[in-house]
Amino acid sequence: MTEGKAPLPTEETHDLIASDKVEGTSVFNRAGEKLGTIHNFMVEKRSGQVEYAVLQFGGVLGMGSDYYPLPWETLTYDVDQGGYVVDLDKEMIKNAPHYSEDEPRFDRDYRERVYGAYGLAYPT
Amino acid sequence: MTEGKAPLPTEETHDLIASDKVEGTSVFNRAGEKLGTIHNFMVEKRSGQVEYAVLQFGGVLGMGSDYYPLPWETLTYDVDQGGYVVDLDKEMIKNAPHYSEDEPRFDRDYRERVYGAYGLAYPT
Repeated sequence: MTEGKAPLPTEETHDLIASDKVEGTSVFNRAGEKLGTIHNFMVEKRSGQVEYAVLQFGGVLGMGSDYYPLPWETLTYDVDQGGYVVDLDKEMIKNAPHYSEDEPRFDRDYRERVYGAYGLAYPT
Repeated sequence: MTEGKAPLPTEETHDLIASDKVEGTSVFNRAGEKLGTIHNFMVEKRSGQVEYAVLQFGGVLGMGSDYYPLPWETLTYDVDQGGYVVDLDKEMIKNAPHYSEDEPRFDRDYRERVYGAYGLAYPT
């Protein structure tokens, strides 16, 4: 496991996960369908609290992707599937805030709408 | 700013920052000396709380790097320098827990030692 100069083999412990391991991880729904991958995730600078992960899908052949901010608490890592599982149906996600090229301003209103779309109270 | 298909131009707002923007960011001390760069950062899976960022330095010509976990709260982003500034002297960092090839297990004891080395109480 620690052959050669591959740095940092573990990158994950029982309760911690490395930021760059989260990025690129697949996201599935309960039915096991792949919804996309985690593009990146947004951290509240001062508190260090992760506010949401950005689910990316599409983007084949340079056609551009769609990005869906998901509240962090909707994601559960599943070891067997090697990815995150969300208990959300596609319709709910489709109707939630998302964007393609231009990233939104992520102001307070937008962030509350993201949480609200998933039936969650906005933290703080 | 949104020319071509460059995805997600902003990646940062007043109080949020994207995970992949944190990675690779330079870290300076108060004197403006560059200490290294952020390799990645570790997130507590369930709560989504960032526990520490991993400062990397060295690693030129395949010589291998050293990695220093820094409590998130020690890092302050400085727009002018385009990087994080830490109010820590080199000696303190040198004496704090760090590793090179093999990542430690990041168990409770290790994590408490990281915080303790920087004079901070371990959260939770």
